[in-house]
Amino acid sequence: MAILVVGSVAFDAIETPSGRRDRCLGGAATYFALAASYFTPVRVIGVVGEDFGVAEEAVFTRRGIDTRGIEHVSGKSFFWSGSYMKNLNEAQTLNTELNVFQSFSPKIPVEYEDSEYLFLANIDPVLQADVRRKMSSVRMVCGDTMNYWIKDHAENLARVLEHLDALLINDGEAKMLAGDNNLVRAARRILAMGPKALVVKHGEFGATSFFGDHAFFGEQASTPFRAPALPLAEVVDPTGAGDSFAGGFFGYIASQPRLTPAVFRRAMFYGGVMGSFAVERFGTERLQQLDRKEIEDRFALFRQLSHLD
Amino acid sequence: MAILVVGSVAFDAIETPSGRRDRCLGGAATYFALAASYFTPVRVIGVVGEDFGVAEEAVFTRRGIDTRGIEHVSGKSFFWSGSYMKNLNEAQTLNTELNVFQSFSPKIPVEYEDSEYLFLANIDPVLQADVRRKMSSVRMVCGDTMNYWIKDHAENLARVLEHLDALLINDGEAKMLAGDNNLVRAARRILAMGPKALVVKHGEFGATSFFGDHAFFGEQASTPFRAPALPLAEVVDPTGAGDSFAGGFFGYIASQPRLTPAVFRRAMFYGGVMGSFAVERFGTERLQQLDRKEIEDRFALFRQLSHLD
Repeated sequence: MAILVVGSVAFDAIETPSGRRDRCLGGAATYFALAASYFTPVRVIGVVGEDFGVAEEAVFTRRGIDTRGIEHVSGKSFFWSGSYMKNLNEAQTLNTELNVFQSFSPKIPVEYEDSEYLFLANIDPVLQADVRRKMSSVRMVCGDTMNYWIKDHAENLARVLEHLDALLINDGEAKMLAGDNNLVRAARRILAMGPKALVVKHGEFGATSFFGDHAFFGEQASTPFRAPALPLAEVVDPTGAGDSFAGGFFGYIASQPRLTPAVFRRAMFYGGVMGSFAVERFGTERLQQLDRKEIEDRFALFRQLSHLD
Repeated sequence: MAILVVGSVAFDAIETPSGRRDRCLGGAATYFALAASYFTPVRVIGVVGEDFGVAEEAVFTRRGIDTRGIEHVSGKSFFWSGSYMKNLNEAQTLNTELNVFQSFSPKIPVEYEDSEYLFLANIDPVLQADVRRKMSSVRMVCGDTMNYWIKDHAENLARVLEHLDALLINDGEAKMLAGDNNLVRAARRILAMGPKALVVKHGEFGATSFFGDHAFFGEQASTPFRAPALPLAEVVDPTGAGDSFAGGFFGYIASQPRLTPAVFRRAMFYGGVMGSFAVERFGTERLQQLDRKEIEDRFALFRQLSHLD
């Protein structure tokens, strides 16, 4: 079933201990869409400038991703420049140019209206809420956010959280959003804000999911679940790991007839799998050229890494 | 089969956000012995002062732990005082009084000589090497160490590492010992120093094991394995969590007829289980009064937390 993702499509300049790229295709929607495209049809809503050409378009279309919702306007695309020289776990932002993204107002093409799954990538919660309202009949909606919105746009963010099936954020963001440094207590507080499930990403330590009472799975509440991340000898570029996790996670769910606890758990593993591929090369290089066998082999590796027998 | 542990037996003063204790029984050998005692016979070598009385002795003997190797000398026992008020993940040492521990020279009682398993808790590597030499025919020896020995006693520590089956240390110590901030590369370097296996403890994120070529399990090298930790809403007192992990891990191995990959994996889970109990109360309070059913129930919870089906 088709997932509609709304978020940034951007150009990034990245330096890491493994090297640098002055200009590579990035943005949360891009990473998400590529990762999800190995599981299910994907449709993208975003905005780009005149610097987004045939080569960039082809990155999406080669993976069968529907780009009719990517609006082309005059000006330059969103540009982000970051460095991981000091800390591979946290980007140091060197430069952000919003450019055409500054006046982004998501428009939903008619052809996208029957999308059954919606992913609200990390953008202004006012826009997230707007898209959510327009797509009120989707089967499931997941979202992401970041410290900037948590700190300075809390009220707007609260209105998004009320209508989310699952929120996917990282460890530090979860603790900031809840105002509690204990993961379990933070999860309880966030679930009380609205999301039926919470997926907290721990970088090299994987991800943990928490569930509200009577979430997704009918009668009974579910216990937490922790999926591992793959220990890697070299993380070439951490950019987009979280969005790739979200793409693998939600893409797998959308590919399944029904959301069960077992499907949710496997989705957590596929999230980790796609995140582990993303960081092996710069930008979306690795995500552009996977095949399903590589994905299944790595899924098996995740199982071997974490299972008793 | 009996495990012999050599290490500190101490009194601790501890403050955490959950409260404080001015004097509770502690020390690495104490935590290790209590945790391991639920799986296998345990024998302790340590030294205590006149303040170690009948009540403290009973903490060991009630769990069937052999205390004939605990030497009683005149003076006061090792005393440590620490605070977790600033950071639950890292103790701030307020005071350390080595007392009788300063001149500790481990003596192995004749009755301990047939011990088949040896755990070298975190003490001066010169003493670790000495005990290791005297117990040269054990089936398996595991050890721990800390940043102090890694930084200032590297040569002595190197002689211990050469003769270890498994080294159990935490994340930061592993990276310090290897001089590499990447976990996988750090593990490779440490395995090249001698240990056949390395277990890296990640606190709330569990633990990862790495294996050298042809470790333990005969012909083929083994892939890494990651065991989860239990997400807890309240960590009352983190003191001794790592030693309790080691006790559960090694205690389970010693209880099994043969060390197989499956046994090693289950041992990692039992390590996490015992660590999760340890932090639920102050000092060794929780470890003193468990039963095997509680342990098995929590083991099942760890499985549920991490397994796909």
